[in-house]
Amino acid sequence: MADRPKAVKLAKKHREVGVAEFFARNKHLLGFDNLRKSLLTTIKEAVDNSLDACEEADILPEISVEIIEMSANRFRVIVEDNGPGIVKKNLGKIFAKLLYGSKFHSRKQGRGQQGIGISAAVMYAQLSTGRPAKIMSRISAGRPAHYMELTLDTAKNEPKVIVDEEKPWDKEHGTRIELDIKASYQKGMQSVDEYIKETAVTNPHATIIYVNPKAEQYVFARVSEELPRKAKEIQPHPYGVEVGELIKMMGDTNEKTLTSCLQKDFSRVSANVAKEILQNARLSPSMNPHEMTREHAESLITGIQETKIMAPPTDCLSPIGEELLEKGVKKEVRAEFYSATSRPAIVVNGNPLQVEVALAFGGEQEKDKPARLMRFANRVPLLYQQGGCGITKAVTTTNWKPYGVQQSGQNMPHGALTIVVHIASVWVPFTSESKEAIANHDDIIKEVKLGLQDAGRDLNKYIKKKYKAHHALERANLFERYIPEVAHSLAKLTGENEQQLVTDLNNMTHKEQLVGNIEALKAENVEYDEEFASIGKEEKEDVDGETEPEGST
Amino acid sequence: MADRPKAVKLAKKHREVGVAEFFARNKHLLGFDNLRKSLLTTIKEAVDNSLDACEEADILPEISVEIIEMSANRFRVIVEDNGPGIVKKNLGKIFAKLLYGSKFHSRKQGRGQQGIGISAAVMYAQLSTGRPAKIMSRISAGRPAHYMELTLDTAKNEPKVIVDEEKPWDKEHGTRIELDIKASYQKGMQSVDEYIKETAVTNPHATIIYVNPKAEQYVFARVSEELPRKAKEIQPHPYGVEVGELIKMMGDTNEKTLTSCLQKDFSRVSANVAKEILQNARLSPSMNPHEMTREHAESLITGIQETKIMAPPTDCLSPIGEELLEKGVKKEVRAEFYSATSRPAIVVNGNPLQVEVALAFGGEQEKDKPARLMRFANRVPLLYQQGGCGITKAVTTTNWKPYGVQQSGQNMPHGALTIVVHIASVWVPFTSESKEAIANHDDIIKEVKLGLQDAGRDLNKYIKKKYKAHHALERANLFERYIPEVAHSLAKLTGENEQQLVTDLNNMTHKEQLVGNIEALKAENVEYDEEFASIGKEEKEDVDGETEPEGST
Repeated sequence: MADRPKAVKLAKKHREVGVAEFFARNKHLLGFDNLRKSLLTTIKEAVDNSLDACEEADILPEISVEIIEMSANRFRVIVEDNGPGIVKKNLGKIFAKLLYGSKFHSRKQGRGQQGIGISAAVMYAQLSTGRPAKIMSRISAGRPAHYMELTLDTAKNEPKVIVDEEKPWDKEHGTRIELDIKASYQKGMQSVDEYIKETAVTNPHATIIYVNPKAEQYVFARVSEELPRKAKEIQPHPYGVEVGELIKMMGDTNEKTLTSCLQKDFSRVSANVAKEILQNARLSPSMNPHEMTREHAESLITGIQETKIMAPPTDCLSPIGEELLEKGVKKEVRAEFYSATSRPAIVVNGNPLQVEVALAFGGEQEKDKPARLMRFANRVPLLYQQGGCGITKAVTTTNWKPYGVQQSGQNMPHGALTIVVHIASVWVPFTSESKEAIANHDDIIKEVKLGLQDAGRDLNKYIKKKYKAHHALERANLFERYIPEVAHSLAKLTGENEQQLVTDLNNMTHKEQLVGNIEALKAENVEYDEEFASIGKEEKEDVDGETEPEGST
Repeated sequence: MADRPKAVKLAKKHREVGVAEFFARNKHLLGFDNLRKSLLTTIKEAVDNSLDACEEADILPEISVEIIEMSANRFRVIVEDNGPGIVKKNLGKIFAKLLYGSKFHSRKQGRGQQGIGISAAVMYAQLSTGRPAKIMSRISAGRPAHYMELTLDTAKNEPKVIVDEEKPWDKEHGTRIELDIKASYQKGMQSVDEYIKETAVTNPHATIIYVNPKAEQYVFARVSEELPRKAKEIQPHPYGVEVGELIKMMGDTNEKTLTSCLQKDFSRVSANVAKEILQNARLSPSMNPHEMTREHAESLITGIQETKIMAPPTDCLSPIGEELLEKGVKKEVRAEFYSATSRPAIVVNGNPLQVEVALAFGGEQEKDKPARLMRFANRVPLLYQQGGCGITKAVTTTNWKPYGVQQSGQNMPHGALTIVVHIASVWVPFTSESKEAIANHDDIIKEVKLGLQDAGRDLNKYIKKKYKAHHALERANLFERYIPEVAHSLAKLTGENEQQLVTDLNNMTHKEQLVGNIEALKAENVEYDEEFASIGKEEKEDVDGETEPEGST
């Protein structure tokens, strides 16, 4: 036995790890790090799903969110929507199987991406309280509503159906989920209240009825009857494909020739472009893609790089738009100047991505604090992990001084400023499965910085104008002081009426107009909503859980 | 067709997402965010595996790491160890199947945890260059070496064997992996050089031979012939188990009664403790665990909470130890004061966890910079994501002023200080699969702070003594200035010889001793290694990829 290799004994320990087992132990990766965040994550996953489902079915969303405190650290969360409902066959997997969904394999903008979120919430409920998820769903008036109680079998990553029955429901179509979870509720910048509020801002087409555990009801009625532009699915763009992926795509394609594969499976490849790519790659257009070797794939990549290909279409994106973005900010922040910009889409790893930025400056915002940063990805507010987010990095590595904003080193700019950044993309690279922060991707950081600079230039123009107007007023005030003396001397010299001269000289200062100029510079705050702005605010913040950095990344 | 529910159409899009497909698209979650980090991650995964394998087989590790620059942004990485080797049957899965390994289901300290790392590196190689991994492994002199070329089938998450043959190898046992990857090489704080160096510090029992792409060879010879204390496997501790997990454990157990299940499947539950738990839970000791309902489980949790149970054993941990930790720091940092502390183990989510802290103060360290923080988890250096790490949070939320160290707000302390923190645990909660930062877990942050305070108190004593000694010297200097005058007056008064009086008075200052006191306070730097300390250093840092924050979290 002595010379039996140790490897033989060690080999017996090697086993497969189930994906649900993995995430059950690493539930912090899914946003369930602490009790406060667990409440937010649970609601976020349910609401994001509801919004996605409604939009996919062209339904103006009406979503109700209710949180009931059952006992200490025990909450019941109920989220109900008027979406298209879910067919019975898929109900179990959608709610109780990780990595199952409709978004991963379709390249188009959505809140969900990977089919993890809501099943993770169901898993968290069962781990923390042992209780199954209660699901109700109905797909049309002509069909019954299905009621299910479900848990997730973590060993197999499969749903376990405990109750399955038809139930009467007054809703014609929609879905309702009820979860009992261990959690804690607290207002503040990282609260469910704040999440719901910011969601209302970036989803003006949705009505959200929200009852928090203090039984306070808020109704965020939709302000737009128009659904956002529907995002279209696109194929991968050739520029974003790496050797390994290319080999896989060629192996999987249904096309019989390289030229048709390039045109069918990729975005922006016309017959002419395909011809040019293949010429540059020195490959035959009639070659069977299934016969592609690694050497061929490397040539093809070179061919692609040497060919000028149009940027991917951007109708797969659904940005918020400058106008709505500015409107949303005005509702929340009472500033004196607003500016919003939607950048043209860029391509990141072959996927279109669009950056939108809004700035709100001055007014009643606090001056002696770091600027407030509001981050959004595909219309979803990001409330955690500000310090690790690529957006934050873009903000702190932008030089704000040329725009008239204070900043020390590469820290968050300082002063009465709110910065809003929205990233819309077919595939947002988040730093973790819990989708709280954008990865530090050079191209994204660069693009956000360009957006900040666009908006910053407008801000700088405003600050300069404001400075000029104030300066003009100061000069007028100075001149005014000498008017009596000047009038007196002039009267003596010319014999004119001294009082008349004073009046004339006073008119010459145009002081009223100068004051008017300053007032005119300030943005109107007609859209500011006192009640709205106060939602979720609390004096003492972030006692529980993660406190967010205000400074540098 | 018009009244066909939309859900029916939408249902067709729902599909399962393969775990490898998921990670292939989200490869940044695995540490492959940018070219520089991809090189580090690849080497880290291979070296960590080698160290784990050697230690499990009681072999003093000898590992060689070679990086060859093949062309622009294309590197060949070769890591070879003298470990136990891997049996042929498991080779494919270990290197080309995500979530496959020996660590997940065994609760003991290890560098690897989840069976993702090395397969992720193989997947990254094939995605970025299309090239398979080349593996050689041999388990004993009496058996042949196996050579395999492998890729990972991302759709199935299974290995695809391209070449499989026996080959001659001069090694009796060991494993060798060769990967071609897209990457970039650069020195600095986040470089492979730095990783290897820090690994040598925390693994004094390992010999590492490293050749970087500039063909510079470094040999880190082992300085200890003793393997670290072997970590033992333990059962989960009752305090760390939640309702859902408890139900699962009861369903999976082989035991026939509750009392035996509690004693066999959990840590620190004796017959008496089991009896007390079940009394508190009002459950029968003879109950069949398989019949446990959710209500029973909730009672059992209550019973556990009401019973005093001994903390879990700590022989599942393998800390570095105060002495070796301090020794390692001395090699790297030329300071005037060193202090190291190993805290007693605590329990986090039922898993033992131990914090070790070392401080190096003053000496030749730069004064006008934030303190340098070196983070380690289970002896592995953490070079990225400092800003998002719980260790950083513990450092910045510690008040350093009482220890004589400058700090503004909750930023990194400032001055000539190096802070080293090591966390050893059966299960380290990382913020992502790439294991670069520790999650912001309250108990861990608290424990790290206690460690910092322990070491801080020693530091404070030193700084106080130093201040006292300097103060005494200053007083002596002051007295010295008056000696001629005092001697002159005394000579006149007493008639003694003035010169003799000067000499006597000078002796009374004990100045030499005071100077000696100050010198004696300073730690000896006999272990400092100039060449070692310079490895990886470069003037211009972090041009590519993530730049680490120096300030607040």
